[in-house]
Amino acid sequence: MPVTRDFFLELANAAAAETLPRFRAGGGIDDKGIKGGVAAFDPVTEADRAAETAIRALITRHFPDHGILGEEHGATGLDRDHVWVIDPIDGTRAFITGIPVWGTLVGLTEHGKAIAGMMAQPFTGELFHAVDGKSFRTFNGVDVENTVSGVTELSKATMFTTTPHLFKGAARERYDAIEQKVKLFRYGCDCYAYCMLAAGFVDLVIETALQPYDIVALVPIIEAAGGIVTDWDGSRPEKGGDIIAASTPQLHQAAMAMMRS
Amino acid sequence: MPVTRDFFLELANAAAAETLPRFRAGGGIDDKGIKGGVAAFDPVTEADRAAETAIRALITRHFPDHGILGEEHGATGLDRDHVWVIDPIDGTRAFITGIPVWGTLVGLTEHGKAIAGMMAQPFTGELFHAVDGKSFRTFNGVDVENTVSGVTELSKATMFTTTPHLFKGAARERYDAIEQKVKLFRYGCDCYAYCMLAAGFVDLVIETALQPYDIVALVPIIEAAGGIVTDWDGSRPEKGGDIIAASTPQLHQAAMAMMRS
Repeated sequence: MPVTRDFFLELANAAAAETLPRFRAGGGIDDKGIKGGVAAFDPVTEADRAAETAIRALITRHFPDHGILGEEHGATGLDRDHVWVIDPIDGTRAFITGIPVWGTLVGLTEHGKAIAGMMAQPFTGELFHAVDGKSFRTFNGVDVENTVSGVTELSKATMFTTTPHLFKGAARERYDAIEQKVKLFRYGCDCYAYCMLAAGFVDLVIETALQPYDIVALVPIIEAAGGIVTDWDGSRPEKGGDIIAASTPQLHQAAMAMMRS
Repeated sequence: MPVTRDFFLELANAAAAETLPRFRAGGGIDDKGIKGGVAAFDPVTEADRAAETAIRALITRHFPDHGILGEEHGATGLDRDHVWVIDPIDGTRAFITGIPVWGTLVGLTEHGKAIAGMMAQPFTGELFHAVDGKSFRTFNGVDVENTVSGVTELSKATMFTTTPHLFKGAARERYDAIEQKVKLFRYGCDCYAYCMLAAGFVDLVIETALQPYDIVALVPIIEAAGGIVTDWDGSRPEKGGDIIAASTPQLHQAAMAMMRS
């Protein structure tokens, strides 16, 4: 069975059934997590685990020969040709603060290379997905093909990073130098920023310390929209770590020249 | 005629008809604004102006005796008892980068004090509104009453600011010191962060250099939800400038003690 847009839609709906009822639940709670030594109601952890369970069940049913790597429930069959990579809620901090820029990420790798992926945002009702070398965003039932911007120069680029505080030491200095060069920089969108890059509204995303499940699903969405995503040395991004995504080869080269050590 | 939730809904719909078709229009355009000396397609400016025109027309029809202060089309009748304050698109940078955390702000002042207001986010379909001392968020046709969190200590608080780069000199040092004290800080949400404070998912918002139209609409949404919003010296916030919004008096005091000069 090939991977299709409709399979991603099925995964997105199954995940949304677990995440959406818990999004903005527990407002007014003083402190999530442990309270007086007792684990308190923690909607994001519950949502994370339940959504990954639902996603894994569908993958196992449709693709029993494939491996799975998930943020919450670990790895199985990583030696298989095809491995699914899942982050049920990317952008936990957006989730707990009520901001609808988190997403459910599911990607598929073949011999280690990301070949299909989705980012679903159930509060807005958006689904970004890439299959067969095409990248789309679905909203209100309509598919629009994603195409990156044509921006080639840092001085004309809009850049995102989750927060500059994640860059340490020399990497922070190099990142700060790029902030001085770009037209506009913004913080705080995790997976949503990469999808806006694929859609042509953001030109550059630079991040550090990513896990494979933070990026694998997004790679086909970016690449099939015409963008480039690698680590800071220009190698394939599927392993995570330090990541640059850019709308054009020229912009990617300019950013990589400034970020690599 | 009194101001009602339904009047805010009418304003929100009229604004959405102008903003939403222009949101994420022009993707792939290299550089918004002037191109080769010729003004290029600039969706955010068009949306801003057209939405404010639509809002002013409805206000003038329903409240002909009231004054109006708008970001785009100036001031009329500021000496009246009642003055409406409009920012058709608060969060221009979110708008141009495709991130759905901008909002249409409309507030009503009586003798200079904000008594009713709305924030509408048409892409998500959310309407935050306050009338008659009650604060609500409407989503999918359902009204939920807003209630702030009970967080009283900086060490348990989640804080937002649009970007720390807006704080200059000593204010930046004082702001950075608060970042060291809070549980979590996040950047980049403009009006949306104040609404999440009213809804109980964010505890503290600190900003600088606001205009009246950036804050007036939000004041009743925060206050009617039980929150506190003032300038850094504890005075009424309607004039804009340096703003602190907090979920509780204790948290407000703690933040104000660190921010005021």
